[in-house]
Amino acid sequence: MSTLTSSPFWSPLAAGLSPYEPGEQPHIADLVKLNTNEHPAAPSPRVVAAITEAARDGLQRYPDPESTRLRGAIARRHGLKPEQVFVGNGSDEVLGHAFLAFFQRPQPLLFPDVTYSFYRVWAQLHGIAAELLPVDDGLRIDIDALAQRAAQGCAGVVVANPNAPTGIGLPLPAIARLLRACPDRVVLVDEAYVDFGGESATALIDAHPNLLVVQTLSKSRALAGLRVGFALGQAGLIAGLARVKNSFNSYPLDRLAQAGAQAAIEDEDWFARQCREVMNTREGLTLQLEDLGFQVLPSQANFVFVRHPARDARELAAALRARAVLVRHFRQPRIEQWLRISIGSRAQCAALVEALQAILEG
Amino acid sequence: MSTLTSSPFWSPLAAGLSPYEPGEQPHIADLVKLNTNEHPAAPSPRVVAAITEAARDGLQRYPDPESTRLRGAIARRHGLKPEQVFVGNGSDEVLGHAFLAFFQRPQPLLFPDVTYSFYRVWAQLHGIAAELLPVDDGLRIDIDALAQRAAQGCAGVVVANPNAPTGIGLPLPAIARLLRACPDRVVLVDEAYVDFGGESATALIDAHPNLLVVQTLSKSRALAGLRVGFALGQAGLIAGLARVKNSFNSYPLDRLAQAGAQAAIEDEDWFARQCREVMNTREGLTLQLEDLGFQVLPSQANFVFVRHPARDARELAAALRARAVLVRHFRQPRIEQWLRISIGSRAQCAALVEALQAILEG
Repeated sequence: MSTLTSSPFWSPLAAGLSPYEPGEQPHIADLVKLNTNEHPAAPSPRVVAAITEAARDGLQRYPDPESTRLRGAIARRHGLKPEQVFVGNGSDEVLGHAFLAFFQRPQPLLFPDVTYSFYRVWAQLHGIAAELLPVDDGLRIDIDALAQRAAQGCAGVVVANPNAPTGIGLPLPAIARLLRACPDRVVLVDEAYVDFGGESATALIDAHPNLLVVQTLSKSRALAGLRVGFALGQAGLIAGLARVKNSFNSYPLDRLAQAGAQAAIEDEDWFARQCREVMNTREGLTLQLEDLGFQVLPSQANFVFVRHPARDARELAAALRARAVLVRHFRQPRIEQWLRISIGSRAQCAALVEALQAILEG
Repeated sequence: MSTLTSSPFWSPLAAGLSPYEPGEQPHIADLVKLNTNEHPAAPSPRVVAAITEAARDGLQRYPDPESTRLRGAIARRHGLKPEQVFVGNGSDEVLGHAFLAFFQRPQPLLFPDVTYSFYRVWAQLHGIAAELLPVDDGLRIDIDALAQRAAQGCAGVVVANPNAPTGIGLPLPAIARLLRACPDRVVLVDEAYVDFGGESATALIDAHPNLLVVQTLSKSRALAGLRVGFALGQAGLIAGLARVKNSFNSYPLDRLAQAGAQAAIEDEDWFARQCREVMNTREGLTLQLEDLGFQVLPSQANFVFVRHPARDARELAAALRARAVLVRHFRQPRIEQWLRISIGSRAQCAALVEALQAILEG
């Protein structure tokens, strides 16, 4: 909201922060916007209907601070009890609370060096030392190295599965090994992208009191604009999140978000159909990108992570932008020659491929 | 979300928290609900129209992380620039961020002993020592004592104006004295209730770089269910809030909340009319309560703070609850013989008075 870089009024902590930089949200129409992993489709019509109804009924009253109905719907869908479900203002808020609730300890928090870049920011915000474990040369998380390090003592472990921005998924037995390696510390599995072909660790919750699974409605439910995410885990972990939430903001989910999210969770048909469509589009786009000479990592997410052996990634991103196609480039060691491309509609993907063809021929 | 009181997985900070307890939000119909200071009217019809339109247009895309249009509307209304406006998920989120951004310092943060009880919780959450200055025997903030103490060194000062739960307002010259007493520390003026007859400190922003004014749409805009609050101040303070926000949650306001809040801010007619209606109802209710023998503090808010010389406040609240009328009682030193009663509709206030008559005669 401002470019000021200092003020005598900022607390020492606030002055030392390096805030997260989200993907560009330009105020320009007609862009092929493949830079922030939004869903190409509009959400379920049941969501719009539920929101419209909620808007007409009682906005002057506070929302349910416990989000009882929404948590019930999520619990039913995942075969859990409501007290095993925590909801927040996007999975980012849920993750931020989890860092404070479980990881603010003297030991370092462990996560891969290539992953969602907000993890470092929350660690900094909450005064948590972060120890980054390198992904391997194929940009895969080395789960055995992570488990071995976790067993030596840590504040906890965070893994994104599938990982961002690579899209590479981990099999459940690997997650289970990690959970067993540090039974007295929380292992947070961030499943923002799991519905596009990944394996959810939710099935491991009963056996592992140290497992916290975090998901979002922003991607697979096409509700990035509604800001709803949730955590699943045994009741002790959920109660810890609730303590932090109730010490920060009693009502993070407005009445519209609660109603819309519940309708989304309950529309299983829309969900299954649209996830399939994204995965089918991804497989087609992958082949086309490979035909253009790109290396494409195997993705279980609604994006692909690609590099071209002969072209600089940042220049490619700039050339695409000049043709009104936005993709995400990270100025970050190890991945600076890669681009993350969201799976758009078939038409958007075709426009991307056409633009790339023109650029590569030029 | 759970009543568990300990878990080995909670961080030491999380384990030590004493979360805020919001007023009861019962899942019961036909209550006369005068316990959480909600507005008796539905919000402006323009709000509902804006939300309905926003729900149909692009919920799959992230909201504007900067809330540009909403901040523009707030800036215009208050005669400020957009970079002097910060918005958040209810004024509670804005306040929580402000505590971290400005008050996390070695010295204590100053606020009155009788005030919004969330201030203590945020101080605890962010590791800030709180020094509570006693209100006087009339439950008025002693601004000169506060200014004197502030001048001796502090992390900052928080005053609610009008104060909660008393409803008593401070005149602007008193706020200005406080601002001058600690020019190198932020004075946060929480104006959640200012639109019902109080004087906003917004007029002092140009002259005081250490002034942060916080307001909400929950009360005077009848949007408790939408979760939108904002802060006004010079650009340096707003940038500090943005640093914290962008290190926690990039998109705290969903697309519906941004659209609905903007429509609310722009409907000046609805706002003026409905604020007047609440104030008129308050004056009538005050007289009726005084007729019943209550002492009623002079209120500039959408509630009154009252006590009966012959009746225990907690018992009165319980007797009212048995008659389906909810009011707020705080189990807290100095105010345990008081009740906070929200200004409802005229019909709700009549039902309250009728119930009180019956109880007092009984």
